[in-house]
Amino acid sequence: MPKKINIAIVGFGNIGSFFYKTLEKNKKSIALKTGKDIFIKYISAKQLNKKRIIKIPKPKWIKNPLELTTKNDVDIIVELIGGSDGMAKKLIFAALKNKKHVITANKSLMSKHGDMLALLAERNNVNLEYEASVAGGVPVIRLIKEGLISNKIKKIYGILNGTTNFILSSMEETGKSFVEILDYAKKLGFAESNPISDLNGSDAAAKIKILSSLAFNKKISEKKILTEGIQHLNQEDIDHAKNLGYKIKLLAVSETINGKLMERVHPCLVDKNSYIANINSVLNAIIVDGYPIGRTVLQGEGAGPGATSSALISDLCSILRGNIKYPFGVSHAMRKTTKSFNILKRYCSSYLRVEVKDQHGVLSSITKIFAKNKISIKNLIQIPDKKKKKASIIIITHKTLELHYNKLIKNLNKNKFLIKKPTFIRIEKV
Amino acid sequence: MPKKINIAIVGFGNIGSFFYKTLEKNKKSIALKTGKDIFIKYISAKQLNKKRIIKIPKPKWIKNPLELTTKNDVDIIVELIGGSDGMAKKLIFAALKNKKHVITANKSLMSKHGDMLALLAERNNVNLEYEASVAGGVPVIRLIKEGLISNKIKKIYGILNGTTNFILSSMEETGKSFVEILDYAKKLGFAESNPISDLNGSDAAAKIKILSSLAFNKKISEKKILTEGIQHLNQEDIDHAKNLGYKIKLLAVSETINGKLMERVHPCLVDKNSYIANINSVLNAIIVDGYPIGRTVLQGEGAGPGATSSALISDLCSILRGNIKYPFGVSHAMRKTTKSFNILKRYCSSYLRVEVKDQHGVLSSITKIFAKNKISIKNLIQIPDKKKKKASIIIITHKTLELHYNKLIKNLNKNKFLIKKPTFIRIEKV
Repeated sequence: MPKKINIAIVGFGNIGSFFYKTLEKNKKSIALKTGKDIFIKYISAKQLNKKRIIKIPKPKWIKNPLELTTKNDVDIIVELIGGSDGMAKKLIFAALKNKKHVITANKSLMSKHGDMLALLAERNNVNLEYEASVAGGVPVIRLIKEGLISNKIKKIYGILNGTTNFILSSMEETGKSFVEILDYAKKLGFAESNPISDLNGSDAAAKIKILSSLAFNKKISEKKILTEGIQHLNQEDIDHAKNLGYKIKLLAVSETINGKLMERVHPCLVDKNSYIANINSVLNAIIVDGYPIGRTVLQGEGAGPGATSSALISDLCSILRGNIKYPFGVSHAMRKTTKSFNILKRYCSSYLRVEVKDQHGVLSSITKIFAKNKISIKNLIQIPDKKKKKASIIIITHKTLELHYNKLIKNLNKNKFLIKKPTFIRIEKV
Repeated sequence: MPKKINIAIVGFGNIGSFFYKTLEKNKKSIALKTGKDIFIKYISAKQLNKKRIIKIPKPKWIKNPLELTTKNDVDIIVELIGGSDGMAKKLIFAALKNKKHVITANKSLMSKHGDMLALLAERNNVNLEYEASVAGGVPVIRLIKEGLISNKIKKIYGILNGTTNFILSSMEETGKSFVEILDYAKKLGFAESNPISDLNGSDAAAKIKILSSLAFNKKISEKKILTEGIQHLNQEDIDHAKNLGYKIKLLAVSETINGKLMERVHPCLVDKNSYIANINSVLNAIIVDGYPIGRTVLQGEGAGPGATSSALISDLCSILRGNIKYPFGVSHAMRKTTKSFNILKRYCSSYLRVEVKDQHGVLSSITKIFAKNKISIKNLIQIPDKKKKKASIIIITHKTLELHYNKLIKNLNKNKFLIKKPTFIRIEKV
């Protein structure tokens, strides 16, 4: 690798421009630590003159990013476009084929095409780095690949989406509704104008797929994993959870059960005194259970220009230090394909909220349906609302097979006394 | 570097033998991840036939570890003897001079001779790795050197000693005395038979010196840093702290104040709802405040064979991957010498417990002494013990210069109504 390294940045929004600024400021310290002098040679963005915190210097501007992949004076391409396909995909494939090192913050692309990209990087003997794709302020990818390198990981889980964590913890703190808090989050810049991929859990799902692949030495799951979001939760659930000693968190979990892999993203009731219950606002937290290390916890800012830039620069320095690394820690050929554990066979306790008409005999009908489905009730609270002639029934169950919950909910839905579909939230031991 | 790498382990107690076992079990996975086949060629320990979890295979045994440093069939030496001088020091100096890579778990040696050793490693173009010397289950050294590489760190602090944290959190939970809990900790193997270096803070001081040197890009502090232990704390202090909304933790802190460095280890009152207050038992936790990343938190087991072996193997893999790294991230010549901030010029709030004879006018004498020393009282609680004719006065102060506390305590000590030296604990905003 030459002493002078040319970098091209593609995508120049909030993150891109902040990264540019930070990189310029840290050139000297990077040279000190890696022995390389970096130079930001090109910047590509759709428009040259958009309003930005930093104006793109005209001589650096390239309209078509694909041109960068064949330029001799580009060593490293930093992709900050986003999106699992389209230009980001074209750019990274072309860059790796042309033996350019790639740094990306793109979790949806990595979770969809990461295996192919890693193979391409390996074949062309270049680095593909993606620390910023999962929890920027938490160097978890490097942690798994290097710090925990020899550990047999049993479970990795945590809060991987700052937007939903902000919403849930703010709902709990303020007592305000989902919609009010979502609006507030948008104003603060904690939720995008179209926050659907955050709210429905798919952002966290992409991230846990990437981590899971690293932790368990396996290819990225191609199938859709169990993904449930927080859109259907309301203030009532948060209050009931609180009174029962729980908080509601959107967790992403990956663990092995009898040699099979269970990856999932869904809201969970967690013990309110647990560590994870007390991760609030936009923070991310990741817990790794491994042997021999025990339990390691990492916590930090999940996104935002600062955290993302920190991760991008750590990737950059890793490349500058000069040895080519397998993007997923081991060579493509050695990454296993793991069978998934069928969620229907999983046991868990759960929280159910059933809204019913306030009629005589309803409670006994409900408990009968539970019994019929072999679900044992641990705790039942009935809250009548005489005015509206309805009642809320809150139930905490003993451990039960997921399959039975499915049947239970189908059975409940058939009954006329039900006002709306029951709310079902799994309880997670953390 | 050849494909087959020979390792020598020196020191074969609990850690050494567990490390050996783990390494043997992980050979295949290490080969997968680093492309190198490792072979444990030699083991050195004082006695061949001591009772151990693993018997030393006789052909591997070497009585004099120094012989290893000149053997052609040794590539990496793992030092697990301990102690800041003596054989550990001789061994590592000789190993580096003879171009052997070194891995050590020895914090007292690293904090005393780390600068010289790093220079020697740099000159001889070999690696010196020491992840296990600070919080084995928390890959914090790698985190600072790699994950947070571009960050300007403002403060790094945390709980770096598991023994004292176990004692403090158990005293709080059980209400038992320091002596009882210490005995219990010894039985559980959480305290050594001579735990003085844990209890008096010097273990944590060695660790914060190492971290501080990495975080602030500077040479290891040669001077003794402010180091206070937990031996003088008693159950009363823990109870009062609790009632006032605090917990007592032994924190190690390093931060820059006006360009100067303040490193210190002492018991602190911390808000009982803070993150660090809820790190209990033998756990370690480290918080890094940096720019642009924000606040990153790491938590895990501090010591023990599992956590230490995990750190040792992460060091080993870093060497096997094959590029020589500066032990402290930058070359010896680029590490600064930073001036220390004079603790006497630091402002903090504090907790004071003064035991006095139960006499008329004592309280007014005490408040007068506080006023004379320009210390403003935020909260005062007087607890008389009529039987013993004494009273405890608990005071929380507003922010005051450390110098004034020193004078205050001197003044208090002169007074005849004092039964014993006051207890003084700083309050730390965490």
